Amino acid sequence: MEIEIVKPQEIEKRSFEIIEEELKERGIVLPEKEVPITKRVIHTSADFSYAETMTYSPGAIEQALELIKGGAHIVTDTNMAKAGINKKTLARLGGQVHCFMADEAVAKEAKERGVTRAVVSMETAARLPGPVIFAIGNAPTALIELHEMIEQGAYVPAFIIGVPVGFVNVEAAKELFLDGDVPYIINRGRKGGSNIAAAICNALLYLASNNIRD
Amino acid sequence: MEIEIVKPQEIEKRSFEIIEEELKERGIVLPEKEVPITKRVIHTSADFSYAETMTYSPGAIEQALELIKGGAHIVTDTNMAKAGINKKTLARLGGQVHCFMADEAVAKEAKERGVTRAVVSMETAARLPGPVIFAIGNAPTALIELHEMIEQGAYVPAFIIGVPVGFVNVEAAKELFLDGDVPYIINRGRKGGSNIAAAICNALLYLASNNIRD
Repeated sequence: MEIEIVKPQEIEKRSFEIIEEELKERGIVLPEKEVPITKRVIHTSADFSYAETMTYSPGAIEQALELIKGGAHIVTDTNMAKAGINKKTLARLGGQVHCFMADEAVAKEAKERGVTRAVVSMETAARLPGPVIFAIGNAPTALIELHEMIEQGAYVPAFIIGVPVGFVNVEAAKELFLDGDVPYIINRGRKGGSNIAAAICNALLYLASNNIRD
Repeated sequence: MEIEIVKPQEIEKRSFEIIEEELKERGIVLPEKEVPITKRVIHTSADFSYAETMTYSPGAIEQALELIKGGAHIVTDTNMAKAGINKKTLARLGGQVHCFMADEAVAKEAKERGVTRAVVSMETAARLPGPVIFAIGNAPTALIELHEMIEQGAYVPAFIIGVPVGFVNVEAAKELFLDGDVPYIINRGRKGGSNIAAAICNALLYLASNNIRD
């Protein structure tokens, strides 16, 4: 296989063209608004199965963009997802990204209570002022905890990006939100990950800033 | 779908059991030494196709473990991969993880020379003292640059974890190393990612430290 000579700045453009061609070959037509987000997820994973499992609540993208343009903060459940989000673009729009998972206090409280750090992290996130977009790429327990807080009337997340990956409770945790009132972008099934959570956030950030990246 | 009641510390164990069961159902038998690494990659991606594309040079795992136990440093091509690596376990073994991609000086030089930041990052990494394990989850140009340095006799990486993801030059860049002299763990094909690079590093770290995690 030959190395193609492609200028650095052209690589992403060429990649998205290839994804578009292959989606066509597979007979997959994505709803227009979802295209930039689902395509970026495929770009991040080289996995076209996401075209069939990425699920958006009605009006999800408009709501997410409105939140981001309004300076909403993003809370992730891993430092990996936090590292992958374009923080300069987010800051220009007035937002910040937080991850409480590695905080000493969170670890200590989780141990004492016999719960996951994800549970304590979500409770911490719920105390942030202003609307929060939750980008969950790892811990189904984070989604389960958020759902419990909603059920108890204790908290309502502004938006859920629900893409944990895995084999235990991951599918069930995602399903909790499919018929709920909180707007969401969820990848049904087992797949997802911190990289997918970051890719979705970045796709939204680029849309919100008209593709002007810092 | 019901939420299963599983204690936090049991989730990973149960996940690996499910992966083992499903590998069996699919009739996939992995070489014994590769099991903990390939399984962790599947755990990170929920994608069983990795069982068919993960490729190890002869003796790769023994060589990687020897390097890690000897305090070798790890260089990643993204801050996401760096964020995902268990740095406490690595530090206990004497190593450190570096990523030069976001360095101001690297960005400046790349722009001036019209090359990717990955190229300049690899040159910077080559100047580190001691053996370096390269964990490349994103940039095929990083692999291409390393290969060029080897060809020119300028540098020999101690070990390559080659799992960039994508559509342009990714497969070709991986193929450059398949018949070379540098020991490697490579995922053939388009798939991979920062999360996969981190998962492979962590699997090796856990093996090197007899599963004692910090």
